[in-house]
Amino acid sequence: MRQSRLFGKTSKTVSGDLKVASHKYLHQGGFVRESVAGRYYFLPLGLKVRDKIVKIIEEEMDSVGAQKMITPTLHPLELWKETNRTDTAGFELMTLKDRRGSAFALGGTAEEMIVDLVRGYNISYKDLPFQIYQFSSKFRDELRARGGLLRVREFVMKDSYSFHADEECFKKEYKIMWDTYTRIFQRLGMKSYAVEADNGYIGGDYCHEFVVECDAGESVFFVSEDEKYVVHEDVAKFKREEVNLDEELKDFEIIEQPAWVRTMEDVQKHYNLPASRFLKNVVYKNRVTEEIIIATIRGDLEINKTKLEQVLDMVGTLEDANDKDLASIGTKSGYVHAWGHENCRYVGDLSLKTVKNFIGGQKEDKTDSINVNYGRDFEHEMTVDIAMAKDGFFTEDGKQKLNEKKGVEVGNIFQLGKHYSSKMNATFIDANGKEKQYYMGCYGIGIGRNMATIVEKYNDDKGIVWPEAVAPFKVHLIGIAGKDVVIKKEIEEFYKELENKGIEVLYDDREMNPGAKFADADLIGCPYRVVISPKTIKEGKIELKERSKKEANMVSKKELYKFLEK
Amino acid sequence: MRQSRLFGKTSKTVSGDLKVASHKYLHQGGFVRESVAGRYYFLPLGLKVRDKIVKIIEEEMDSVGAQKMITPTLHPLELWKETNRTDTAGFELMTLKDRRGSAFALGGTAEEMIVDLVRGYNISYKDLPFQIYQFSSKFRDELRARGGLLRVREFVMKDSYSFHADEECFKKEYKIMWDTYTRIFQRLGMKSYAVEADNGYIGGDYCHEFVVECDAGESVFFVSEDEKYVVHEDVAKFKREEVNLDEELKDFEIIEQPAWVRTMEDVQKHYNLPASRFLKNVVYKNRVTEEIIIATIRGDLEINKTKLEQVLDMVGTLEDANDKDLASIGTKSGYVHAWGHENCRYVGDLSLKTVKNFIGGQKEDKTDSINVNYGRDFEHEMTVDIAMAKDGFFTEDGKQKLNEKKGVEVGNIFQLGKHYSSKMNATFIDANGKEKQYYMGCYGIGIGRNMATIVEKYNDDKGIVWPEAVAPFKVHLIGIAGKDVVIKKEIEEFYKELENKGIEVLYDDREMNPGAKFADADLIGCPYRVVISPKTIKEGKIELKERSKKEANMVSKKELYKFLEK
Repeated sequence: MRQSRLFGKTSKTVSGDLKVASHKYLHQGGFVRESVAGRYYFLPLGLKVRDKIVKIIEEEMDSVGAQKMITPTLHPLELWKETNRTDTAGFELMTLKDRRGSAFALGGTAEEMIVDLVRGYNISYKDLPFQIYQFSSKFRDELRARGGLLRVREFVMKDSYSFHADEECFKKEYKIMWDTYTRIFQRLGMKSYAVEADNGYIGGDYCHEFVVECDAGESVFFVSEDEKYVVHEDVAKFKREEVNLDEELKDFEIIEQPAWVRTMEDVQKHYNLPASRFLKNVVYKNRVTEEIIIATIRGDLEINKTKLEQVLDMVGTLEDANDKDLASIGTKSGYVHAWGHENCRYVGDLSLKTVKNFIGGQKEDKTDSINVNYGRDFEHEMTVDIAMAKDGFFTEDGKQKLNEKKGVEVGNIFQLGKHYSSKMNATFIDANGKEKQYYMGCYGIGIGRNMATIVEKYNDDKGIVWPEAVAPFKVHLIGIAGKDVVIKKEIEEFYKELENKGIEVLYDDREMNPGAKFADADLIGCPYRVVISPKTIKEGKIELKERSKKEANMVSKKELYKFLEK
Repeated sequence: MRQSRLFGKTSKTVSGDLKVASHKYLHQGGFVRESVAGRYYFLPLGLKVRDKIVKIIEEEMDSVGAQKMITPTLHPLELWKETNRTDTAGFELMTLKDRRGSAFALGGTAEEMIVDLVRGYNISYKDLPFQIYQFSSKFRDELRARGGLLRVREFVMKDSYSFHADEECFKKEYKIMWDTYTRIFQRLGMKSYAVEADNGYIGGDYCHEFVVECDAGESVFFVSEDEKYVVHEDVAKFKREEVNLDEELKDFEIIEQPAWVRTMEDVQKHYNLPASRFLKNVVYKNRVTEEIIIATIRGDLEINKTKLEQVLDMVGTLEDANDKDLASIGTKSGYVHAWGHENCRYVGDLSLKTVKNFIGGQKEDKTDSINVNYGRDFEHEMTVDIAMAKDGFFTEDGKQKLNEKKGVEVGNIFQLGKHYSSKMNATFIDANGKEKQYYMGCYGIGIGRNMATIVEKYNDDKGIVWPEAVAPFKVHLIGIAGKDVVIKKEIEEFYKELENKGIEVLYDDREMNPGAKFADADLIGCPYRVVISPKTIKEGKIELKERSKKEANMVSKKELYKFLEK
């Protein structure tokens, strides 16, 4: 490809919004261009990269017997109603009606569409298992898009769905997909962690996110020192250290407390005790049912809202309570009691069992309770894990330290079980001739996000350093001929020779100064830069520089081909 | 691929709705499955075919320097407002809003998106021309879907857009695309006609539809005997034969006419004269402006509404007038006058000049006018071509007979001129450093419709007969082993051998009777059926049958490979 003909120019100016390396370089290099926030054009260079990523995923999916197909983009909304996903918050579904009044969803994932297709067939246990997959546009009506391709409102996803007779068969597939995903990200040049995660709006019992460690990522996860426990912060289990269980039980008392003592900082100062000795209450409202939830936890820990939603079976519905909500249970900010409010539910964290003689729990203007003991003075409906893990905490058995990491979720695998097949009554005929609901799994990879993550991992201060497997072109040929027609001709012939050999080459045939050409080559990031200039011709050589290395080398044409073909 | 694992079974039952061969066989063969009307799943077999069609188009587009990219699916509606296409009827645009209230269109074509992208760059005349293309989902909110993939509400289209400094440069590209399209359809196994057509809702001055002759098609077009004039019915020019111009002019008269004389049939009977001697008025209403239009034409001809819309610059807005509309200009059905009504516009067809002494034009209950002469007794604002051509009519020069044909529009190429670049002010810098608006073209191919048209051309009473270039598999291998494990093993080994040679093979390894396997092979329509059975093994041969031929042959393995590799 001649760079003079390439649509989508590089640009030097950078808006201040482009804080993330992948966002900045993919924009500057002419790979993508934003239409409106979170919706991207893939320009010729960018689509070349995306197509290569797609091809790698396709090869790996095919190699394990998954079959490619595709659903319509518009999903009949009635299917989403069958599974109650039209109301599920957290999943930002876009809907529209056609001129005949039929309602459709712009799919965020395609479980309903696939299950509706599959249940239309007479399928026997002999036909199982099978997995079908697609690359298709997905839509998420996110409130905020950020970081270029890292979080967008429209993207291409490889989503696949497997159908099984039972859990045993599914588990084999889950393992196969685990390995397949690991291989895919490896081929894309990335080490991935399979992170035990919350299944969110998808349904089912367990799932794993594949996360690539990276500062630009939004996924927080923990890895135990032995790397055997890899877990998302929303499901991370950890040991709550005992604080003072050897202390003697004291009598519950209401004591005077100065009016200025309000916050967690205030009480620590006033009592000169660590945060772990105090009770903390955090209030939420379920925005669907309007129930008020009070979560009680040890003062040095934070509530993990996702964990709380999970134990209450209120996925995606809790929001911070406001003054009006607090008033509805007869209290106000800073005065929430750890017991006794009516018209609300109380949930306690496991940490309540690690402290004797808590301070707090019944704060009034000039008094509070002390020597409060969980189980003796109050006890909640549930005592469960609703706390946020932190870097340096230990695994439940206390043996391994947990290291906190940040990364980008580049893929995920879900156990769905019979979540969808039961709601949509999708059945096969088992060996006894009876109808049985499918046991299912689903597996996703966002293509654009992978592309951005590769750039996050492979860049320097000059631009992108593409791994060869996904580079838009293998070779960036730079001709420096000036006005010399003989040299120009020689370069042109060499360009054709490379193309005839089937080597993907971007040929910078533009009339501009060499410095600008080199800067563009660094920005675009093809793995091998090859320069032909009066100097190289004089020496009878060619200049070869790997994008990932500092030094260039003068090589013969024969050496170059040998190198490129290795 | 093992057929036992293939997702998407063949089906024998056919709903009465499946009247069109492609609809029936693509459904029965397990290529596609309808979700809701006009929205299709492409199953693994169908997507294989679609991918091959896509690849052929991609190769041909790349070979002429077009560059692949892709736009978002959701188009900001404000862009469509810039070109006034939100209101244009005929184009059934779907729209929706996101949670922040931003409005989007589900693109039917992507001119606005592409022009918005291009105008964001500093482009110089040196960068021109260029053409960019995409394969993307397109949405049309059609009132009626029909014929399977022939007319759908959602489909993948290859749409491309070229940008030029001037018309001269564009015309070269138009010719290149004409040839490219001809080549593409040839590679897909189809002879296409480049049919001069109406440019409809796209804008611009001229365009050509590529049409494949086929009974299931909806495009009516005419081909002159010498095949030099190939034209869509909506723009077909033809000679209006003189009827009686040698007759003497007679005096205009109002005469009595029996009350039963109402229709065109009635007047012919009453006056015993051919339809061509009568005046006919057809009334329309512009549903945007509510203007009433009366089109007057010779009694033996029909109005072509599209032509009428074009001359009035009212594309896609005319509808048949109803009783209320007629009342609004003081008349009623059957009593429309060829002159004299107020609050309406009159348009006359060229045919009004081919008759002397027309009968009709001022019908009342018991009277009508006779000896009416156009130009003498009445004359309209315009006298233009608004008539429907018919089979057997002659070209304007009277030399070539026009043959009427039906076909499927498999692609189209449009001159857009400065239609979009002026409305959206998209400019480049010309050689004098001045801003100049682009001269544009656009070019479309519907992938699914091409797939269906191929099936329309290549099928018999047993199923599809795929051309090799787009067949889902080259070879359909049928194993007939029964319970014989030795034969089974031999077939399995042969299957692996074919796969290892890189031959695309669908291997029917299912346990079912040979007759059903043969029927499925005919239905699915792979080009070569290869059978291994106890009989062939005994002879040391393999049975080879081409899907398009009646006879099977016994060949050696060597002969088979030689044949398949030719």
